[in-house]
Amino acid sequence: MSKPRIFSGMRPTGRLHLGNLLGALDNWVRLQDEYECVFAVVDWHALTTGYEDTSEIKENIRNLVIDYLSAGIDPAKSLIIKQSDVKQHAELSLLLSMITPLSWLERCPTYKDQLRELEGREIMTHGFLGYPVLMAADILVYKAQIVPVGEDQLPHIELAREIARRFNFLYEQVFPEPQERLNEVVLLPGTDGRKMSKSYGNIIEMSASTEEVNSIVANMVTDPQRIRRKDPGDPDVCSVYAFHKVFSKLGVDDIRQGCSSADIGCVDCKRKLASTLNEYLEPIRERREAIRRTPGVVDEVLDDGAKKAGIIAEATLEDVRKAMRI
Amino acid sequence: MSKPRIFSGMRPTGRLHLGNLLGALDNWVRLQDEYECVFAVVDWHALTTGYEDTSEIKENIRNLVIDYLSAGIDPAKSLIIKQSDVKQHAELSLLLSMITPLSWLERCPTYKDQLRELEGREIMTHGFLGYPVLMAADILVYKAQIVPVGEDQLPHIELAREIARRFNFLYEQVFPEPQERLNEVVLLPGTDGRKMSKSYGNIIEMSASTEEVNSIVANMVTDPQRIRRKDPGDPDVCSVYAFHKVFSKLGVDDIRQGCSSADIGCVDCKRKLASTLNEYLEPIRERREAIRRTPGVVDEVLDDGAKKAGIIAEATLEDVRKAMRI
Repeated sequence: MSKPRIFSGMRPTGRLHLGNLLGALDNWVRLQDEYECVFAVVDWHALTTGYEDTSEIKENIRNLVIDYLSAGIDPAKSLIIKQSDVKQHAELSLLLSMITPLSWLERCPTYKDQLRELEGREIMTHGFLGYPVLMAADILVYKAQIVPVGEDQLPHIELAREIARRFNFLYEQVFPEPQERLNEVVLLPGTDGRKMSKSYGNIIEMSASTEEVNSIVANMVTDPQRIRRKDPGDPDVCSVYAFHKVFSKLGVDDIRQGCSSADIGCVDCKRKLASTLNEYLEPIRERREAIRRTPGVVDEVLDDGAKKAGIIAEATLEDVRKAMRI
Repeated sequence: MSKPRIFSGMRPTGRLHLGNLLGALDNWVRLQDEYECVFAVVDWHALTTGYEDTSEIKENIRNLVIDYLSAGIDPAKSLIIKQSDVKQHAELSLLLSMITPLSWLERCPTYKDQLRELEGREIMTHGFLGYPVLMAADILVYKAQIVPVGEDQLPHIELAREIARRFNFLYEQVFPEPQERLNEVVLLPGTDGRKMSKSYGNIIEMSASTEEVNSIVANMVTDPQRIRRKDPGDPDVCSVYAFHKVFSKLGVDDIRQGCSSADIGCVDCKRKLASTLNEYLEPIRERREAIRRTPGVVDEVLDDGAKKAGIIAEATLEDVRKAMRI
């Protein structure tokens, strides 16, 4: 094993948007050559908060794999797996849960946050509390050294490290202590200027068609003070400009200048953005189209991923069972 | 599936004693013809309170299987399994943990009892709290209808029923609600009159040799008021008499009479008991001897059990995954 190993995953809870693409997937794509990567669809995790309604989970898993592939995750380089296909995640999670103090989990800030956010729903389950144990198992079952994550996941990586350390201390040195690798922070707001979030209805899906992009961009919120075409605008309060900053890197100064001086109108500015976005999404759409033309490719990728990941995971479990003398 | 299915299990924590034999194993042996039985060595459960020192677990597993076999559990009739061989226990446990409210577990009386009993040891782990979820998975993975248990396990069976009911309600009717079948209560004290318990050092192991039985019985505590041979004794405060009541069913009235009237001395009374016990243990010793003469038999029994149990368990998991639509 010459290259260091990376594990990361997403829950199958719906189609990914541009924020996910820039904030995570693009980053994963860049890591593929340098590292041995395992990218997972963590469907068991989706149950922690979504166990009451699982009607869309299969469709969501499929779509997430298609999003991974179309973003440029290459199954010839990286393993793409569905968590529940690799049963060793469950076995290791059970074993690690035996050595994980309840207090570590109860003190986890994300646990408290989610309890507050999802108040009223019955999510105070044993599995929900054990979320970080299962996540530790996901990482440790591949002995991954590096976990690309967003800042919100830092407490979980910290816990995974503590669990690894405790295991190594109680039994034998089996696990490397996984290190986070923070995804580049991309300041992409939603189409209304707030945080991009499905629940706000202000997203652009990474699978959006040209027409969808055109229509969404045409309806984006601009500087509300700029009422007439000849009024100068304030780019710093305009969500279209925020998008230009991310996607139109070279032309962004001209746009700022044109907006502030009223040389460019919002309609033209939006057309420019739509065209830039469509250009950016083009290779993704082409890959998506290729997937559509190859029925069975998602199943094949997952089957292959499960087989190869299963071999790595089973080797780890053998070490684990030996260390625990069970 | 014509016969109803039974599941029961014991933790591999050391050699079984006469109390375990009479209170559980003898009962299991009687159930083998009427039911389809799965008897487990629940090694993962042993980790809930014993994760810190697993040095003896392999030896204990082996000895427990030998105890099962020598008690008369017949692998041609019943499945004997090691829990950790059948990975579906872990997968189902994980899935059930998603739907099991923390409050159900925290309220479980055995949880509180054990916390009190084992105070000072670091056992407040996620796995320890989840003990009843794993036990529910053990039972439900075989869709067992009946679980022979001692009275102390009733809260766990109740929880297994509640978890089954919740699953059936949330998704689809998959699980029968398991019913307890209380083991016959056998009033066998330890050799000193207190409860028979390894921690009191007052047990007779079911694998004890003739010499060991003779020596242990010779040292049993009798009526402390009966100092001289000609003093009449009080059988009701004598642990030897308590054993006679269980094992010397036909002669027990003579013994009571002889003790009360000082017709029998303690030495003779003990000799009689030792001989009765040795007679009772004879078929067990013969089976144990046969096992010793057949190297590999324990592994064969477990391999065969794992294979057959795995088929049943996987069929259940297929139902479970389908019901949960994952």
